[in-house]
Amino acid sequence: MQEIKRIGIIGSGNVATNLAIKFANTGIEFAQIFTRNQKSLNAAITRCRPKVIKDIALFDRNLHLIIIAAPDDSIEKISKVIPNEIPVVHTSGSVAIASIANRSNYGSFYPLQTLTIDNDNKNIPIPILIEASNTAFESELIKLAETISSQVSVFSSENRKKLHLAAVVVNNFTNHLYSEAEQYCIESGISFDLLKPLLKETARKVQTQSAGSIQTGPAKRKDMNIIEGHLNMLSENKDLRDLYQLISAQISKKSIR
Amino acid sequence: MQEIKRIGIIGSGNVATNLAIKFANTGIEFAQIFTRNQKSLNAAITRCRPKVIKDIALFDRNLHLIIIAAPDDSIEKISKVIPNEIPVVHTSGSVAIASIANRSNYGSFYPLQTLTIDNDNKNIPIPILIEASNTAFESELIKLAETISSQVSVFSSENRKKLHLAAVVVNNFTNHLYSEAEQYCIESGISFDLLKPLLKETARKVQTQSAGSIQTGPAKRKDMNIIEGHLNMLSENKDLRDLYQLISAQISKKSIR
Repeated sequence: MQEIKRIGIIGSGNVATNLAIKFANTGIEFAQIFTRNQKSLNAAITRCRPKVIKDIALFDRNLHLIIIAAPDDSIEKISKVIPNEIPVVHTSGSVAIASIANRSNYGSFYPLQTLTIDNDNKNIPIPILIEASNTAFESELIKLAETISSQVSVFSSENRKKLHLAAVVVNNFTNHLYSEAEQYCIESGISFDLLKPLLKETARKVQTQSAGSIQTGPAKRKDMNIIEGHLNMLSENKDLRDLYQLISAQISKKSIR
Repeated sequence: MQEIKRIGIIGSGNVATNLAIKFANTGIEFAQIFTRNQKSLNAAITRCRPKVIKDIALFDRNLHLIIIAAPDDSIEKISKVIPNEIPVVHTSGSVAIASIANRSNYGSFYPLQTLTIDNDNKNIPIPILIEASNTAFESELIKLAETISSQVSVFSSENRKKLHLAAVVVNNFTNHLYSEAEQYCIESGISFDLLKPLLKETARKVQTQSAGSIQTGPAKRKDMNIIEGHLNMLSENKDLRDLYQLISAQISKKSIR
């Protein structure tokens, strides 16, 4: 099995761009790219000078790997038009690798991080989950992943799906709570900025402690005065009230005080 | 109005201990402490060498301030036995200062942070919200707060209560999501550690961007395949399923895609 040194990417969104940023200066050559949005190619990608191709069938047969960084529902379709000689991975948390099994070397290369393009996140750690159709390809994918990440794991499609579910909870759902709190602050004429150190510290604490063991607050204490006071304050704010009621009930139930 | 240089504290929990840590080396003398749990005094407090007193009536009448860092439902009672000459503040997010109005100088000194005692959090920023019975006392409280915090604001009891509600959301509720995700990972035999960079980055992003504007994920995309798949995976996990359903519905509703 060929060591992976020359790759192609399909897609030009946040995942493709962040991979390009990470692979730059690792010795991995980002040789070709296919994207529908040629005009929107991020500078981080163009700096790598990949050849932009206009048809997936035009990918160089000698590429060591093509990474499909495209929406979930297009991955299977895309894989069908990629020349069969070229090993392929996708970057999705949810799509089983069985859906791109039309070649000998296929797998997944899932970056478990919220990837946008800004100047402050260049050094954030990106755990990468690997899955491969055979152990030789798996080894090469691990080596490739280790050039850009110190947290590389092998995960089955089923377990990757579970981790993706948990990722939705700690990323999208947490962000929704931030958003609801921000909205409430705006409506109340108070500054959400004051809460930023608190939410950052909340995320820092669970880096070393179990979240379940460090819970605090009115629901944990079953302080019904405060809980009912807060629910009354939210009488005009149905969404936040629903969240408050459900989550407080769950926290109280789990509290053994 | 006397500049606040010599203080007493009531309580020996996380708030009292963290204030002691912060006031050390600021020139503020932590002269006396009253606590029911004398044996549990944290080393950070004993290092400040406050005189431990056994009766609230024994507080030195010449103290410039007593900080009540005690549970919400005991604050009013405690304030009634503090000698009237001594200015008093409490550290609660929810208690109106009207409940300790039995003297000329009273107020609140609310540290808006999740305070535990560990070695890594000595430098975390602690916004402090001030409220006072009169402007002279307010000025002195602001000066005091500024010795330990660069984010000092004046907040009415009513607005402090609102900010406390929002703090419950971004701290306790977020921590509950972390806890549910952790529990799900444990039950699934997958490592929660892999999600720690992600949840940290989620909190980092909203330091500079509005949470509502950067939402992503299946609910935002209204990707019903993934949402229904996840709900099926949670059929045995009622609490997380309820959270998933409610929060996804709220995110989808707000998405204008």
